[in-house]
Amino acid sequence: MTAPPSSVQPIKVGIVGGTGYTGVELLRMLTLHPAAKVTTITSRKEAGTRLDAMFPSLRGRCDLVFGDTASADLTTCDVVFYATPHGVAMADAAKLTAAGVRIIDLAADFRFRDLGVFEQWYKLPHACPDLAAEAAYGLVELNRDAIRKARIVGNPGCYPTTMQLGFHPLLKAGVVDAGHLIADCASGVSGAGKKADMDLIFSEASDNFKAYNVSAHRHHPETLARLQEMTSERVGLIFTPHLVPMIRGMHSTLYARLNGKGLALGNEGLQALFSDAYRGEAFVDVMPFGSTPDTRSTRGSNVIRLALHRPHGGDTLIVLAVQDNLVKGAAGQAVQCMNVMFGLPETSGLGTLPLAP
Amino acid sequence: MTAPPSSVQPIKVGIVGGTGYTGVELLRMLTLHPAAKVTTITSRKEAGTRLDAMFPSLRGRCDLVFGDTASADLTTCDVVFYATPHGVAMADAAKLTAAGVRIIDLAADFRFRDLGVFEQWYKLPHACPDLAAEAAYGLVELNRDAIRKARIVGNPGCYPTTMQLGFHPLLKAGVVDAGHLIADCASGVSGAGKKADMDLIFSEASDNFKAYNVSAHRHHPETLARLQEMTSERVGLIFTPHLVPMIRGMHSTLYARLNGKGLALGNEGLQALFSDAYRGEAFVDVMPFGSTPDTRSTRGSNVIRLALHRPHGGDTLIVLAVQDNLVKGAAGQAVQCMNVMFGLPETSGLGTLPLAP
Amino acid sequence: MTAPPSSVQPIKVGIVGGTGYTGVELLRMLTLHPAAKVTTITSRKEAGTRLDAMFPSLRGRCDLVFGDTASADLTTCDVVFYATPHGVAMADAAKLTAAGVRIIDLAADFRFRDLGVFEQWYKLPHACPDLAAEAAYGLVELNRDAIRKARIVGNPGCYPTTMQLGFHPLLKAGVVDAGHLIADCASGVSGAGKKADMDLIFSEASDNFKAYNVSAHRHHPETLARLQEMTSERVGLIFTPHLVPMIRGMHSTLYARLNGKGLALGNEGLQALFSDAYRGEAFVDVMPFGSTPDTRSTRGSNVIRLALHRPHGGDTLIVLAVQDNLVKGAAGQAVQCMNVMFGLPETSGLGTLPLAP
Amino acid sequence: MTAPPSSVQPIKVGIVGGTGYTGVELLRMLTLHPAAKVTTITSRKEAGTRLDAMFPSLRGRCDLVFGDTASADLTTCDVVFYATPHGVAMADAAKLTAAGVRIIDLAADFRFRDLGVFEQWYKLPHACPDLAAEAAYGLVELNRDAIRKARIVGNPGCYPTTMQLGFHPLLKAGVVDAGHLIADCASGVSGAGKKADMDLIFSEASDNFKAYNVSAHRHHPETLARLQEMTSERVGLIFTPHLVPMIRGMHSTLYARLNGKGLALGNEGLQALFSDAYRGEAFVDVMPFGSTPDTRSTRGSNVIRLALHRPHGGDTLIVLAVQDNLVKGAAGQAVQCMNVMFGLPETSGLGTLPLAP
Repeated sequence: MTAPPSSVQPIKVGIVGGTGYTGVELLRMLTLHPAAKVTTITSRKEAGTRLDAMFPSLRGRCDLVFGDTASADLTTCDVVFYATPHGVAMADAAKLTAAGVRIIDLAADFRFRDLGVFEQWYKLPHACPDLAAEAAYGLVELNRDAIRKARIVGNPGCYPTTMQLGFHPLLKAGVVDAGHLIADCASGVSGAGKKADMDLIFSEASDNFKAYNVSAHRHHPETLARLQEMTSERVGLIFTPHLVPMIRGMHSTLYARLNGKGLALGNEGLQALFSDAYRGEAFVDVMPFGSTPDTRSTRGSNVIRLALHRPHGGDTLIVLAVQDNLVKGAAGQAVQCMNVMFGLPETSGLGTLPLAP
Repeated sequence: MTAPPSSVQPIKVGIVGGTGYTGVELLRMLTLHPAAKVTTITSRKEAGTRLDAMFPSLRGRCDLVFGDTASADLTTCDVVFYATPHGVAMADAAKLTAAGVRIIDLAADFRFRDLGVFEQWYKLPHACPDLAAEAAYGLVELNRDAIRKARIVGNPGCYPTTMQLGFHPLLKAGVVDAGHLIADCASGVSGAGKKADMDLIFSEASDNFKAYNVSAHRHHPETLARLQEMTSERVGLIFTPHLVPMIRGMHSTLYARLNGKGLALGNEGLQALFSDAYRGEAFVDVMPFGSTPDTRSTRGSNVIRLALHRPHGGDTLIVLAVQDNLVKGAAGQAVQCMNVMFGLPETSGLGTLPLAP
Repeated sequence: MTAPPSSVQPIKVGIVGGTGYTGVELLRMLTLHPAAKVTTITSRKEAGTRLDAMFPSLRGRCDLVFGDTASADLTTCDVVFYATPHGVAMADAAKLTAAGVRIIDLAADFRFRDLGVFEQWYKLPHACPDLAAEAAYGLVELNRDAIRKARIVGNPGCYPTTMQLGFHPLLKAGVVDAGHLIADCASGVSGAGKKADMDLIFSEASDNFKAYNVSAHRHHPETLARLQEMTSERVGLIFTPHLVPMIRGMHSTLYARLNGKGLALGNEGLQALFSDAYRGEAFVDVMPFGSTPDTRSTRGSNVIRLALHRPHGGDTLIVLAVQDNLVKGAAGQAVQCMNVMFGLPETSGLGTLPLAP
Repeated sequence: MTAPPSSVQPIKVGIVGGTGYTGVELLRMLTLHPAAKVTTITSRKEAGTRLDAMFPSLRGRCDLVFGDTASADLTTCDVVFYATPHGVAMADAAKLTAAGVRIIDLAADFRFRDLGVFEQWYKLPHACPDLAAEAAYGLVELNRDAIRKARIVGNPGCYPTTMQLGFHPLLKAGVVDAGHLIADCASGVSGAGKKADMDLIFSEASDNFKAYNVSAHRHHPETLARLQEMTSERVGLIFTPHLVPMIRGMHSTLYARLNGKGLALGNEGLQALFSDAYRGEAFVDVMPFGSTPDTRSTRGSNVIRLALHRPHGGDTLIVLAVQDNLVKGAAGQAVQCMNVMFGLPETSGLGTLPLAP
């Protein structure tokens, strides 16, 4: 564990690929962070552009200029966030870790233990299998100790965060049929990134709802592998993502069939599994049994809310999970990881309340 | 069966409760209907108001004035649509049927065979059990013959339409575990009606997504009862509705576990079950296997689109269903029923294409 | 004037550039048209693609396949609509008119009398100045006779339609200061077309409002030139377009200062100017003085609604104008032009009611 | 001026009427305020309810319970915010000021010098004309000194904030025709408050745009009176509000005709008027000439952005102004007033960056 920095020496933060939504979110949070300072931010295409020219929301609050990703010297940073497409962080990882710089990758390069799965889904040979092997998976609530010691963190995908936090207490306790889990999930459009894609334009995505990538979303193998670590039973997972006409927000409706042990626990016992699992967690809100959380109750904040339902008292348990896909599902969780890695209070820079309405 | 009306004698249509969204939708479609004419429309609260004063979209196209629901003489109509709260149609039914007037109720009064279930969920004693017993359930594709002969039609709920059309070919063929069906559904806000409710105001419902009524939606008993008629196996159904920030549109993601017979059929066989079931249906579009229909492809039209998925070639089959909740899910289906009842072409008045974008 | 086609010989319609929003709107309306039939539709990029593969809303209603713009023979058509970028129609015009084919261009090629202005704003030399000189400007209410006789129609821009119909009665009567007109306008996002542009993606355009092209929108010179034809006074026009997070709809708030003659008329006299100007027009709804039309009251229909206000009884008159930018502002107006050109009832194919809600 | 409180003694804040949007916004900002603490919050209808039961966004961040407005003792507070309907603050003002409690009213009770105008527009006799006479108008940038010394602050309306900050440099410098100002404004739906009103439900307000209260909005007399104080010329103002389908955000397009002095200044001189007027202001962003600010660049923050345009180099100057109607237009400005009243840094509690996207 690293000693907390003194107040005169904030953590020097680099951001690679700051032109997307996770980049500007990192900036929003780190600008308020009492112990970190963004010193370098780079972009392949926007080198030389002021950030506030691209993001007018930063006007008056940020004097940074995009450096060139190819030439910027990141070795002066204490930590570098990669808010880039898949494949960029792994190319830099050896050099940076050798220079003592920590890495938090918001893409998929360091999310997989089984690099064969990574290569199959991301169509890229892995650049540094050794570093991938030592990297920690950045889901803090389930992996805090490894993150604390890590040089490299692979920040989880947005959907996988909800599925893992939602299914974990059940798989850990062995109270459901692990072989037939269903995750019916819905995401706001920002989940697809800042990308000029025909399917994402307002006239196509607004006033509309649809499923997509039904049998073929990259978050499926990521989640499946991590769920499998929670149980010795063979895990089966159906994951159906949907696109919602809202900017931010992610909602997962998780279905699991209770086994005999689960049925014996009863509603109170099941609720207790969740309360116990997340007791003391700053960013996990276990709501009263039967609640229906809405995504906007998390807008702009790092919290995830969970609620249990058991329709008609039957053998199906439903876990509802909501989060802001860009915060707990991406940039907020990354800052949370940084806080853990540097021994800071886990909530540093993450104190703003959700924006409602 | 009734003889088609001659061209000089259009069907005289009454609408009770025309101030809601299903009322104005009925008007939109019946205005274009070549063989029907709205002669009477009533409202409890708006008697004396011109319709186009309440619905400016009708200006220049409709000269009707709301009559008083209490005093209007509906016995001069050939058919009366009830776009009212539950309980209104059944109060009038004896008188109207005695006068030879057909009834199409868009509320729940005539949707249930088991009136005990109706009374439990709608908290109303049924006013005319005999008429309820003879009423036809207005899901045309599954019940055309009964509707053709009916004096009274109970128009299905919006969600139940998608669930029944989606699960029917599977239950009929006996290829899934009927005891563990899951319907994860999402509706646009107009599904809640034209109602000044705090949860429905723009600032609450926009940029938001949530589940609601998870174990307690009235469309659950309606659907369960109808699904049960499709199979001798005992049906179990989990139904989770969600609210989407869009005006119109309904999307159901239906999960069923294939049994041995289903697995043996394979994808082509399963697809064929659907193609065969809905061959020749004007309003059911069975899309190619693996399609992802979006709700807006049905906006303003009476079509429902279905598509099958089988993730990872496993034992779970997914049926995606989309429709316009106010059209195939309500007013359009009601006009379709009218066409069947009066021996008209089933597409009469329902020819407009979806509004896209 | 052309004789109306007999019922067995529908007008043969070609559409060039059918992959955008005006293209699919033309199809939506022409599919319902009793006297026209789309026989050819072309695209540069999508030749060979079925239309309903690109627009699922057309599934079951349209068997057409995109032809190749470069090679399709359009001379078999009676009329060809150009739903293309600027510059395409003028390249084909000589050949088609020589073959007796009429042209309705939804782009700007035939909107300008002064081709110098066209060339300055559209950065294209005009390909056929002679044909441009004979072309009619397709604002039916103000130019019906010329359209009736025209071989080529330049369909007006969306904003210009609202500004011209809104200011025309005032300029014609000489009751306002023509030199200081202000048009503060707002458009739904579909006005920008089906275009994968970063500013148009949902996450950028939703929950947002902004002005754009404040001093430099191409619809300014088009409108200015046409307004100038309505008066001998020199016209000055400030036009400020804004982008609204809605799919369809256009709202113009037009400000004009009343001169002595206008003040003398009083509110009733001013209202009468509008009522008289548009009496008998099927698609112009002059609402009662002081009304506030909303855009959705026109969604999907060819109507434009106008309403007058005179704040505090002062010397400023406000005209509010609403329309569907894709219908009266584009494809609907084009079909209206076709009806006039072929001597058909002006409302043919344009009978659907607005979709509300 | 009050001495800044010591760090161990935060300002004790009361909020009356905390169930609306301005109430929850005050809480959001004051929770992050380093020198203030909400000690009391009351509601007429929700006494006894936990705040986080009504606003799930506050779960885990706020333990407050609504007190009863009728019986709560507010005299223990240092300052009380009234986030209530008009008329509530003035009823309490005498008692609270006598007890040394400052008042910041977000309603209209203390916005008017001429109580006759207040009474005419708000249909209420004023309860305390003497206190109204001493109250300061809470537009900090234009009235900082008075606010610093005030016992009572009347927080400005949302639209008036944009119109005053936008027109002030022009009227002060005497460079425009004050008698013919036009403000064409647009607001997100939250501006109407948390109110179950039919016009505000999602299905009515979404995918729609309209003007409202064209000649009769209460913000007209408020603004007119304040603008009149900036010039000796007689002010004439046309104010046209519009409703935009977005939750938050306000956009004003302000038109003024330059007089000879204004024309002589030229664009640079006009721009300098604004730069000079707001130099050093933390919350006013004067953008480069010709910019088009979007509302979302202010979402959740207290900033207002201004930009000038002069179409075609003519005599009309346009000022574009954007803000978050709930923050700079309401609760944020109120906190800014509190900071001024208590000698705190003006940005205390107002440091969060806009939420983008």
